[in-house]
Amino acid sequence: MRVWNTQREERQSRLNAAAHLAKGKVVAVADAQALIEAVVRSGDRVCLEGDNQKQADFLADALAAVDPATINNLHVVQSGVVLQAHLDLFEKGIARKLDFSYAGPQSHAIARALSAGQIELGAVHTYIELFARYFVDLTPNVALIAAVKADRDGNLYTGPNTEDTPTIVEATAFKSGIVVAQVNEIVDRVPRVDIPADMIDFVIAADRPFYVEPLFTRDPASVTETQILMAMMALKGIYAPYGVQRLNHGIGFPTAAIELILPTYGESLGLKGKVATHWALNPHPTLIPAIESGWVEQIHSFGSEVGMDAYMQARSDIYFTGHDGTLRSNRLMCQTAGLYACDMFIGSTLQIDLQGNSSTFTSGRIAGFGGAPNMGSDARGRRHASKAWLTAGREAVDGPTSLTRGRKLVVQMVETFGEKLVPTFVEELDSVKMAEELDLALAPVMIYGDDVSHIVTEEGIANLLLCRTAAEREQAIRGIAGFTPVGRARDRAAVEALRARGVIRRPEDLGIDPLMATRQLLAAHSIEDLASWSGGLYVPPSKFRNW
Amino acid sequence: MRVWNTQREERQSRLNAAAHLAKGKVVAVADAQALIEAVVRSGDRVCLEGDNQKQADFLADALAAVDPATINNLHVVQSGVVLQAHLDLFEKGIARKLDFSYAGPQSHAIARALSAGQIELGAVHTYIELFARYFVDLTPNVALIAAVKADRDGNLYTGPNTEDTPTIVEATAFKSGIVVAQVNEIVDRVPRVDIPADMIDFVIAADRPFYVEPLFTRDPASVTETQILMAMMALKGIYAPYGVQRLNHGIGFPTAAIELILPTYGESLGLKGKVATHWALNPHPTLIPAIESGWVEQIHSFGSEVGMDAYMQARSDIYFTGHDGTLRSNRLMCQTAGLYACDMFIGSTLQIDLQGNSSTFTSGRIAGFGGAPNMGSDARGRRHASKAWLTAGREAVDGPTSLTRGRKLVVQMVETFGEKLVPTFVEELDSVKMAEELDLALAPVMIYGDDVSHIVTEEGIANLLLCRTAAEREQAIRGIAGFTPVGRARDRAAVEALRARGVIRRPEDLGIDPLMATRQLLAAHSIEDLASWSGGLYVPPSKFRNW
Repeated sequence: MRVWNTQREERQSRLNAAAHLAKGKVVAVADAQALIEAVVRSGDRVCLEGDNQKQADFLADALAAVDPATINNLHVVQSGVVLQAHLDLFEKGIARKLDFSYAGPQSHAIARALSAGQIELGAVHTYIELFARYFVDLTPNVALIAAVKADRDGNLYTGPNTEDTPTIVEATAFKSGIVVAQVNEIVDRVPRVDIPADMIDFVIAADRPFYVEPLFTRDPASVTETQILMAMMALKGIYAPYGVQRLNHGIGFPTAAIELILPTYGESLGLKGKVATHWALNPHPTLIPAIESGWVEQIHSFGSEVGMDAYMQARSDIYFTGHDGTLRSNRLMCQTAGLYACDMFIGSTLQIDLQGNSSTFTSGRIAGFGGAPNMGSDARGRRHASKAWLTAGREAVDGPTSLTRGRKLVVQMVETFGEKLVPTFVEELDSVKMAEELDLALAPVMIYGDDVSHIVTEEGIANLLLCRTAAEREQAIRGIAGFTPVGRARDRAAVEALRARGVIRRPEDLGIDPLMATRQLLAAHSIEDLASWSGGLYVPPSKFRNW
Repeated sequence: MRVWNTQREERQSRLNAAAHLAKGKVVAVADAQALIEAVVRSGDRVCLEGDNQKQADFLADALAAVDPATINNLHVVQSGVVLQAHLDLFEKGIARKLDFSYAGPQSHAIARALSAGQIELGAVHTYIELFARYFVDLTPNVALIAAVKADRDGNLYTGPNTEDTPTIVEATAFKSGIVVAQVNEIVDRVPRVDIPADMIDFVIAADRPFYVEPLFTRDPASVTETQILMAMMALKGIYAPYGVQRLNHGIGFPTAAIELILPTYGESLGLKGKVATHWALNPHPTLIPAIESGWVEQIHSFGSEVGMDAYMQARSDIYFTGHDGTLRSNRLMCQTAGLYACDMFIGSTLQIDLQGNSSTFTSGRIAGFGGAPNMGSDARGRRHASKAWLTAGREAVDGPTSLTRGRKLVVQMVETFGEKLVPTFVEELDSVKMAEELDLALAPVMIYGDDVSHIVTEEGIANLLLCRTAAEREQAIRGIAGFTPVGRARDRAAVEALRARGVIRRPEDLGIDPLMATRQLLAAHSIEDLASWSGGLYVPPSKFRNW
């Protein structure tokens, strides 16, 4: 007779092994490692919560400190591999297999560990793709998560950085897994219950607050005039004609520049209330001037941003906040919003090839995907129309059709040369060669060329929707690739023909004088200006405070 | 000075207006309508929870009973328009605008109300597309939801039918909306907390349990030999060669037939453990024999299914269950699993055109989309590989490429003639003409032809991945369209050429003798057999009990 509740029995056996360490659900800091050793078993799938923002860093250290002779062959299934402790798991032989989404600062270290055979790589996912597998074939046996506060029953207050927590907990707790939470403090009553105690097995008041990276803060002082020129082109050449109201901005200075010229250049174009009103977006400080100027109606966020808490609490008409007043973020829901409810994704990348494929995986660097491939792809299951979506769809086909279809606007915004004057445009992505060397099933591509609608550089906008052949697409890309080798190899006649058709548009074609692209257009010139716009509600992290 | 917390003030004003009706959060049945009148205001976006399964039917009746002179111009934003009360809202002039996903039994009534100008239609969405807009531009002001139990603080136990509730509540509660829950009973302590009390404003113990439709129950007694033949072809011609392990089955008898021949025909093909192991699937009773025979490793569900509760509780290794033992479903998470973590969607439809576009919107019938367009579309943001996905991707391109890409398998399984001998294959979808008549922005297409990988009929399998031109695709479809006008108009030479290339495969090409397709192959012949397979744990609803 088959037994059908082995997972429940296994769970109970682990709870029993840990029972002597806990008072109710509360475990002391000193017993953290013993708890981990009681509830984690070799071969487990483990999710150590952490993405591009918050980190369960205390629990990561505890897991990395276990004896690899006792606990090994773990399969790490988590959004981010970001901390040194995450790498330690593989270097020490505690973990063996990895399925993840985002690497950030560890992108070189992961590449090295892969080459050295320390990591058996499952795949690099987008965030919600990995979440999806949590419910199908990569369900965690143990989740080690982070929250701000817990009560003694185990109810959790995640605070503004809710992020991945509800999804991780749901997948683990409802498949007989074990959920351990590190919290900054244990209180009598949490400000609000973000995660019910029923889904939590153990809580530990860590010896330090969990780490959060202020990843989405861009100092206006570092925005260049080239980026301002690109931002002007994007606003006048894309936001305005398509009437883009619902959108996501990726991370980076070019999109920060757009945010900062909404109340100045955007205002002069008469776009207020007509574009950029509804957002799936982290709480970018550079959006504060536009919010204060009345551009923005609503923002839903993947996570929070360090220093923005009081501002968001005071702007509850704009942000999603709880009855306690603080932000509620949710990565799964916001990524879904970006996929299905937004008309545009606009972001930067490191390399673009002649078909428009892009990648941030360059030699010796496994960057991960995060959310861009999800939001930067045409959602073929979308069935509701909007002006922006229908306009893009019409441009992508010739002549009338009985089946009108729309298209997402997916815009890549890059300078022709990146850091250290490395060309952004290349004949072949580095990631193709890397995939061969590391024997990956797929070359890591951030956004596929056939999903890209526009590329914006300082030389102009290429509208790939209007290209009808691969050759046209290639010349459209070469035609805005500036003095890079790819740009210099353009067929000048073909590029001028594309320009005549409006496939390529230079600043002058858009009625933009590049000399106007000065820092005077920025609504804020510094982090201090942003704090000032916020009426003192935005409190920048110390590393951004230089006044 | 702009006020930034108008939504919170509005919320508080409504709570104040309702305060005299509630004892804590508990409101008496007799005060339900007064509560609704206190918390709903004209012009509100309202979500009356209800999809293709559970319904907040008590609250729907209460809302439909308000005075349209006082409350009107509501904008209904909800998954299902299923109950008479939902239609009443529009007929009485309480509601004006509609954004929804699924119509089911009201598909004719919606079409009539649209024609009569009673409904201003926003759009027909897929489920998670509408959820996505809850966080961007269709956030509900009021959510009227359903749960099994509440405690006096307002903590909710949704039981197995969690479905849309967490998503609706999150969007509403965290944007200063009002959440009212009907529950079957109020208890001292709920079996588990599915929704924390912080997110709930009022609870009412309704005068009857909320309604649940047993939509996913198919009686094996009604499975025909034609469907069994198609099921054999699907298993041998698609599941086996692609090695499809992670999948979703749509609703209908053809897929029920597949489920029922896994332990018989599937076993004889040696497929056990090799295909159909991990599912995003509602708890189909017809899958019980395969589960009991050891075919299935894990199932995550959108919702529950009437009569399956005790069975699922006893099979916690397979299903997602809470610490209390009962199922936890979640439509957003399961649809995401279907989109990103499954290699195949297979389902039925009502009409297919010559490009492979399909629709269930036929003359005078607005069926809605539900989840099929989401799961039945190629997820272009997917970045992890599997055998099935890579094999499909390879077939879709000619020759080698530097950028290997995978493809989802999207299979349409239809008999060439549907009910009343209406041809399934048509030159043009009815929905194209309907869209013109009703002035819809888009003709409602369930799955676009370019997302479909295979069509299975009793005449054979057409592999559209292998078609290289529109003309080939048309002949591949005609070649399996049987004696319908579309099928009879085939170019016989072209069809035989496609067959020689394996684009079309007949039963004999697959080594299947149609005479073998008998009901003997079904692991269960009746609902009673399913109950018997389950060891008495599956308790079919009365309408399916005929022994």
